[in-house]
Amino acid sequence: MSGTLSRPILPAVSVKVNGVPYRSIFPDGDRRSVRIVDQTVLPHEFRILRLTDVEGVARAISEMQVRGAPLIGAAAAYGLALALRRSADDAALARARELLLSTRPTAVNLRWALDRVSEAVRPLAPEGRAEAAYRLAGEIAEGDVERNRRIGEHGLPLIRALAARHPDRPVEILTHCNAGWLATVDWGTATAPIYLAHDAGVSVHVWVDETRPRNQGASLTAWELGHHGVPHTVIVDNAGGHLMQRGRVDLCLVGTDRTTATGDVANKVGTYLKALAARDNGVPFYVAAPSSSIDWGLEDGGDIPIEERSAEEVTRITGRSDDGGVATVSVVPDGSPVANPAFDVTPGRLVTGIITERGVVQASREGLASLFPERAGARTEGVTRP
Amino acid sequence: MSGTLSRPILPAVSVKVNGVPYRSIFPDGDRRSVRIVDQTVLPHEFRILRLTDVEGVARAISEMQVRGAPLIGAAAAYGLALALRRSADDAALARARELLLSTRPTAVNLRWALDRVSEAVRPLAPEGRAEAAYRLAGEIAEGDVERNRRIGEHGLPLIRALAARHPDRPVEILTHCNAGWLATVDWGTATAPIYLAHDAGVSVHVWVDETRPRNQGASLTAWELGHHGVPHTVIVDNAGGHLMQRGRVDLCLVGTDRTTATGDVANKVGTYLKALAARDNGVPFYVAAPSSSIDWGLEDGGDIPIEERSAEEVTRITGRSDDGGVATVSVVPDGSPVANPAFDVTPGRLVTGIITERGVVQASREGLASLFPERAGARTEGVTRP
Repeated sequence: MSGTLSRPILPAVSVKVNGVPYRSIFPDGDRRSVRIVDQTVLPHEFRILRLTDVEGVARAISEMQVRGAPLIGAAAAYGLALALRRSADDAALARARELLLSTRPTAVNLRWALDRVSEAVRPLAPEGRAEAAYRLAGEIAEGDVERNRRIGEHGLPLIRALAARHPDRPVEILTHCNAGWLATVDWGTATAPIYLAHDAGVSVHVWVDETRPRNQGASLTAWELGHHGVPHTVIVDNAGGHLMQRGRVDLCLVGTDRTTATGDVANKVGTYLKALAARDNGVPFYVAAPSSSIDWGLEDGGDIPIEERSAEEVTRITGRSDDGGVATVSVVPDGSPVANPAFDVTPGRLVTGIITERGVVQASREGLASLFPERAGARTEGVTRP
Repeated sequence: MSGTLSRPILPAVSVKVNGVPYRSIFPDGDRRSVRIVDQTVLPHEFRILRLTDVEGVARAISEMQVRGAPLIGAAAAYGLALALRRSADDAALARARELLLSTRPTAVNLRWALDRVSEAVRPLAPEGRAEAAYRLAGEIAEGDVERNRRIGEHGLPLIRALAARHPDRPVEILTHCNAGWLATVDWGTATAPIYLAHDAGVSVHVWVDETRPRNQGASLTAWELGHHGVPHTVIVDNAGGHLMQRGRVDLCLVGTDRTTATGDVANKVGTYLKALAARDNGVPFYVAAPSSSIDWGLEDGGDIPIEERSAEEVTRITGRSDDGGVATVSVVPDGSPVANPAFDVTPGRLVTGIITERGVVQASREGLASLFPERAGARTEGVTRP
């Protein structure tokens, strides 16, 4: 296991593993590879993988060794850089971009990062492209860290306000899937306000949705909150509605894989159900969305492509066996077909607010355009940033 | 494995296992024991257990070897009969009733069945009580079969009407947990209309919610639909909202563990989330409720006691290992706390209709009282049965 021998080059912010601060992705000293935390073996094992070529990066994305919309973007940027180390002509660039783009259809950060790198290196002579791409991948990763820190700062007052209302007990926050440190380069999106609140001494407690079928909540969010010392409780995905009915949730806070220009939010399947329960019980429902996850070209959440993943993610569950090893069991009868849509779309009408790196706004065209007038395009002419 | 050697005495209706029609519970020839299908080892193994004393029955209920509100009622009735075989005085009767009542707090059929047997045997001399209780337990079981068959007949027209609207494709029905043959003595509640429709040649397809944490959907409902030849697809609990948004569900059909006199429905946790999604997408949401699951003394679903079950149901998952054996894996990091509420309450306002053995009515006091004026009590005076 190479993991325990490697250390990140950049200072990490939010999560320490065995006392060492880590980022979920970090460049290698040779600038010809990149290191990632293998998210398919957590929480049973903390393993760092070294990726050396674009095929390895594409496989790591599609097999979800790296996952989470913002992290996928950063990983894809490094993937393009690694491809250009091998061959840097226009055809190779286009091929590598296509390969990476095909790995996951829903998260828009992937395309955003690939476009950013492609457009930056295309004007350059081939011999300078790889190094420029590698440098830009680093900047994309740094930009993610900075965006998430700002999301944390903009989200923190929401948690502080709830804490002031309930000084006698922790603020109860429900989250779905993993929009944490592991889904980004650092901090997380939905977790950034939580980490900042916890570090500032605000008492918080997180209800962690298990998040079937891949259990990213139980495997990843619980693991990372535990490492940071944030009080939390794992629940099955079915339980959140009941908790909201009984007044046990003050705030829902989730991430997003793609947000339309009108504020519809694609996120891990099941998010929509929690948004419905939040509305039915008067619980505020916030989405942490870095601008890299906003698809300014889409109007309607119904047009977001929803990835259909393999049946095996549902039928087979991997965990720690009683002898300490890792084992996989089958939980669906042979012969029973399975469907596995990986995301759903929460309409903007169910979202109390979107927390971006520039502030918190209504989940609407007007709201998003007010913060990002330069991205919202011609349609938003006349809307001025507050 | 004693299972394959035992045959039910009564003719079964809905499910054959290896060509043999079975009920989920059936009396033994010696009238001093009762046989059940062990639901904790399905779908990996079909095992019949012989229960010989009240302690065994209580354990089978609390460990969910038998489960499902109607089946719990029938099992408890047999449990009381077995207790009376050993000692039939008033004190023994009261002790056995208390023991059985303490096994599961949410399903009301348990109390309903225990009260029915207790009241019937109390006037008798002790020496006649055990045999009378055993006979009455059989009648309770038979009554369940008959109620469910009628629920099927009353629900069938709903499915036929949807089939007429979509003659080119199957009627798409979503169900949660197992309100099937295995949850009752036979037929099931929510599944009874589905089995009748399928047997009548109406094309149906069932979306089976996995139903974490115990996976009764994947383990039990998929297994029994498969044995009956009903087309179905297993999905994780998170997926149903997305399917409804995309127009892939025509009807939600679930069971209930306790329904208030006003039409609020306690059912397996997660049901409420599906009811919210159904309302948001205009999908009819029906609850199959035999009168034995109606608690006429309760007005408000918020007063239904919600069972909190063990964390291990969430943290440990049992399935078939690749070598063909049965294995258990842990899926939550050590040290992460877990909460496990087993039920939630769907308010009557989200329920399109309740399918009872006497017909389909609105989920309201007026609706239920119109069908069961003799049970609805003084409040419903003047309401006449249609």
